[in-house]
Amino acid sequence: MGTEIERKFLVKDDSWRASAAAGTRILQGYLASDAKITVRVRIRGDAAFLTIKGATAGIRRSEFEYPIPVDDAESMLCEMAISPVIEKIRYQVPCGAHVWDLDVFAGDNAGLVLAEVELDTEESVFEMPDWAGQEVSDDPRYYNVNLARSPFRHW
Amino acid sequence: MGTEIERKFLVKDDSWRASAAAGTRILQGYLASDAKITVRVRIRGDAAFLTIKGATAGIRRSEFEYPIPVDDAESMLCEMAISPVIEKIRYQVPCGAHVWDLDVFAGDNAGLVLAEVELDTEESVFEMPDWAGQEVSDDPRYYNVNLARSPFRHW
Repeated sequence: MGTEIERKFLVKDDSWRASAAAGTRILQGYLASDAKITVRVRIRGDAAFLTIKGATAGIRRSEFEYPIPVDDAESMLCEMAISPVIEKIRYQVPCGAHVWDLDVFAGDNAGLVLAEVELDTEESVFEMPDWAGQEVSDDPRYYNVNLARSPFRHW
Repeated sequence: MGTEIERKFLVKDDSWRASAAAGTRILQGYLASDAKITVRVRIRGDAAFLTIKGATAGIRRSEFEYPIPVDDAESMLCEMAISPVIEKIRYQVPCGAHVWDLDVFAGDNAGLVLAEVELDTEESVFEMPDWAGQEVSDDPRYYNVNLARSPFRHW
């Protein structure tokens, strides 16, 4: 079990690409999502994971993640997930003491780029990158499950 | 991935106990359950499993099951599952070519005993045990998720 503390920002420009490592393709979908629980299936490169997240309390939530066979993940995404499945390329970008995840969305969410930093505690200090724009941690439109239900291109 | 084909019956008497092996305690709860998907956490003896089941089509449904740490299962049952958690002792009882699961419920479902047989195909022939009563495969009250939502003692 872990507890996930994340802050999420829009991205102002492409300057982060200068310090980004090679990206990894992510396909993910949601088998369930309500106020108490989120069940996510993710294929990241050539690995796959099943992730259970509990209720969000502020920017903190319980999280359990398990590796699963990619074939199982593909079947679940095809048969059971909320449509459309989320497609994105994830880049890792160091800034100060943290490594940020930059998600460049594709498919029905093409045009959207989100930056996330994972923190040890809710009070953790972190360096704000020049390319980081408005914080959207609390905006439900940017939750990945809502990007499956109501993709960016329909906004 | 597997496909689960099960038939479920009430139990008329205790005569099955003569051919039952020692029982195993099961605690299980549901993190999500709707028409498309069921997500179950089960602690069986000293092992734990996370199970994803797809939509039911007749008596057939897709099923994916993964072993998980018992500590994770306990946290999920405590924090995230629909209350009350299901408690039962499962006994295995051979009859003809099949081994039946006899579930003797406890807690809020005490008094209920259900017998299940898993089949290879929907057309599989099986021997009906003397102790098997009315078939309840299609009665939603006996789905385990509904025994969590509406336990037997409230019927």
